[in-house]
Amino acid sequence: MSQTPDSVVRTYIQQHRDAFLDDLAEWLRIPSVSAQPDHAPDVRRSADWLAAELKETGFPTAEVWQTPGAPAVFAEWPSDDAQAPTVLVYGHHDVQPAAREDGWDSDPFEPVVRENRLYARGAADDKGQVFFHTLGVRAHLAATGRTTPAVHLKLLIEGEEESGSPHFRALVEQHAERLAADAVIVSDTGMWSEDTPTVCTGVRGLAECEIRLRGPDQDIHSGSFGGAVPNPATAAARLVDAPHDEHARVAIPGFYDGVVELTDRERALFAELPFDESQWLRAAKSYATQGEAGSTTLERQPKPPTRPTAEVNGIGGGYQGPGSKTIVPSSASGKPSFRLVAGQDPDHVEKAVRAWAEQQVPAGIRCEITFSGATRPCLTPLDHPALQSVARAMGRAFEKPVRFTREGGSGPAADLQDVLGAPVLFLGISVPSGGWHAPNEKVELDLLLKGVETTAYLWGDLAENWCHAP
Amino acid sequence: MSQTPDSVVRTYIQQHRDAFLDDLAEWLRIPSVSAQPDHAPDVRRSADWLAAELKETGFPTAEVWQTPGAPAVFAEWPSDDAQAPTVLVYGHHDVQPAAREDGWDSDPFEPVVRENRLYARGAADDKGQVFFHTLGVRAHLAATGRTTPAVHLKLLIEGEEESGSPHFRALVEQHAERLAADAVIVSDTGMWSEDTPTVCTGVRGLAECEIRLRGPDQDIHSGSFGGAVPNPATAAARLVDAPHDEHARVAIPGFYDGVVELTDRERALFAELPFDESQWLRAAKSYATQGEAGSTTLERQPKPPTRPTAEVNGIGGGYQGPGSKTIVPSSASGKPSFRLVAGQDPDHVEKAVRAWAEQQVPAGIRCEITFSGATRPCLTPLDHPALQSVARAMGRAFEKPVRFTREGGSGPAADLQDVLGAPVLFLGISVPSGGWHAPNEKVELDLLLKGVETTAYLWGDLAENWCHAP
Repeated sequence: MSQTPDSVVRTYIQQHRDAFLDDLAEWLRIPSVSAQPDHAPDVRRSADWLAAELKETGFPTAEVWQTPGAPAVFAEWPSDDAQAPTVLVYGHHDVQPAAREDGWDSDPFEPVVRENRLYARGAADDKGQVFFHTLGVRAHLAATGRTTPAVHLKLLIEGEEESGSPHFRALVEQHAERLAADAVIVSDTGMWSEDTPTVCTGVRGLAECEIRLRGPDQDIHSGSFGGAVPNPATAAARLVDAPHDEHARVAIPGFYDGVVELTDRERALFAELPFDESQWLRAAKSYATQGEAGSTTLERQPKPPTRPTAEVNGIGGGYQGPGSKTIVPSSASGKPSFRLVAGQDPDHVEKAVRAWAEQQVPAGIRCEITFSGATRPCLTPLDHPALQSVARAMGRAFEKPVRFTREGGSGPAADLQDVLGAPVLFLGISVPSGGWHAPNEKVELDLLLKGVETTAYLWGDLAENWCHAP
Repeated sequence: MSQTPDSVVRTYIQQHRDAFLDDLAEWLRIPSVSAQPDHAPDVRRSADWLAAELKETGFPTAEVWQTPGAPAVFAEWPSDDAQAPTVLVYGHHDVQPAAREDGWDSDPFEPVVRENRLYARGAADDKGQVFFHTLGVRAHLAATGRTTPAVHLKLLIEGEEESGSPHFRALVEQHAERLAADAVIVSDTGMWSEDTPTVCTGVRGLAECEIRLRGPDQDIHSGSFGGAVPNPATAAARLVDAPHDEHARVAIPGFYDGVVELTDRERALFAELPFDESQWLRAAKSYATQGEAGSTTLERQPKPPTRPTAEVNGIGGGYQGPGSKTIVPSSASGKPSFRLVAGQDPDHVEKAVRAWAEQQVPAGIRCEITFSGATRPCLTPLDHPALQSVARAMGRAFEKPVRFTREGGSGPAADLQDVLGAPVLFLGISVPSGGWHAPNEKVELDLLLKGVETTAYLWGDLAENWCHAP
């Protein structure tokens, strides 16, 4: 097959590197935190900024799509080859909450480059990995001499991924025709390590909730009433503690229903991945591993994430100030979230959690459980031709053998797969040390540019090597 | 025996009622919160104010005693009868934390009278119950025509009771000679109900601690690392949940060591106390009772508090803001406190808790437990003559039969008993609905004045009826 001379692509990328990074920095300065209502205007500003930038890039169509929550951005650049396959790129422009005092070495919304790494909230998750498509498609055109992409290229960049994508499925259903695609490329995952490029074959789903427990109508004296009335903070602790049995398995009846176990081939492929537990622990900034009895660290640790989990992301109740206050608190709350693997249904998990929680809460404690947007798990066949194209394009960019893995993060990939009936592929260049959802989030500039280069090769490879049904 | 005409006492109290309440309100405006470092100057101001007020009352000696923490106030008014017994009144001038937004209907440090109740932080616990001694001793003198009290009267009002009295024992040991007394009267308890005056025969002790748990060095992505590393919030939940077995008994090995069980006589006396569970629940602002299997609600509920308890006063960790943040939090903490009954030793309980906690915390979680000031439980013989004097004085003031009970709160009474070798008596007029440690703390004005009246009778009764060894 004819190939674009890689040198041309690399030269083009080098020539436009600085402008590309300046534009990305401008976007990263917009604190598009979807979880915090007071940042709603910033999320809207982020969407408007991206739509304008995509027009600038050359997309004939770039629109902001409103939702009952935060807006998404849709862009489309048809190929002049009517027979070309249609590819939809998914990403998100909202980011996790971040505050300097969380432990950031610099303002999370004032991007800074240190040691060839770009530090900012969203640098890796996910603005950086959305943005490499802008320079990527330009490089593709420049190197091929085309005026339109080799594939019909569509982008859908949502604004609520960090809040569980509550309105995403409805949005996709509403615009199903315009979003129609032969393949979906999700640009919101990572690779195994700086040295090991990997193609992700699936992501876990997520069911998250907030549990609010109310006991006395106000804080009461623990010396006068303690021991004789139920304590909501104790009840919250029970709901956080009880989901795990002594084997670190999730003890909620029905939680594991439908879980698809690893195939022998997947097990063999994952075994090829270099894994150094102490190195992984450093990336996790943790001091010990744990996990279900019977699963190896490589399996239970979330790269590749083949097991579902139950984690508490936060718990609070009663007096948390300095010193002591001897009360039975009036209320307490917890924020558990559940990672789901292929075969698990978020609705089923929600039912299981609710039924289980009712059993745990003592009489006299009022319990209210609110589930926010759930995302379903997703898995793509290892031998899908489009997946092979992604692996080839990545191999050309990295000049290394590409391995296969699964990702720990969650995303609405399953909704796209369900509604559009298209296979979902994953392309990501961030690494475990990228600090996703953590202070000092960063992206390696070299890898970011490899992402640009991968997409510069990908569209041609897909068009040439994937004969899809017309 | 000759008695002061009660009418004279009552008239005197009525005449001085308004000035007495104005002075108390002035004191209550000082936010002497010992648990919050930024209120340290207020605690000092409270001590200075009280010392000046006691001079004003007539105490020849009124001094502020410094400690490594908050200052205490000592005052002394010798009797002209050299043979008179010496009585030391204990109370505290520090208060629990309070903020309007906790649910107060008015500023906690701007006293207001509604429906003949005085609302303010400290109105009942303990400034109100300290302050009635000022008018009480004046009424005693006015009604008896004495120029000095019938007993050698001493007051020790500490400033760290709400913080566990960390320096109190050392203070008492340092000044043991000047504090020497034949009996200690603790003015920091309550009575059974508005209609049932009671004399408290003992208080529970307290051991409280803060448990800090640290996992990852920073918050990490629960999708990338969750399930594979220990979560400190889950560990905190375990430490809060696990202390109670399925019978609501404290499951910490050694916790119950030495507990003195109820005597038949105590059980019979307590059975005489009117008890309406639904009414008690309303006072507790709660929706159900709970307690150890095998103990009746009357026993397990803390009036009279015959059982030890383990309660969590607060728990916190991870993301507690709006929406969700899918992290494994870096740290979490809990503030458990343990109420102790006669026979339990706080040091032994601390050892038991530490040993037990070590077993509960998973590898990779660093656990730090800090115990703050502990107070030992205290119990006084029902037939002690001074206790009978208190019951008589209270009966005269309330014109009702007086019953016996125990109190749920804790105090350094045991330190006074140990160091001074004196019996400890309890005199209190607050009621369960007083909102101790809660929003809208209040004292019933009628009961506050009955407290004044009780002390107006008490000194004479003690002097006449208690022949102590010279």
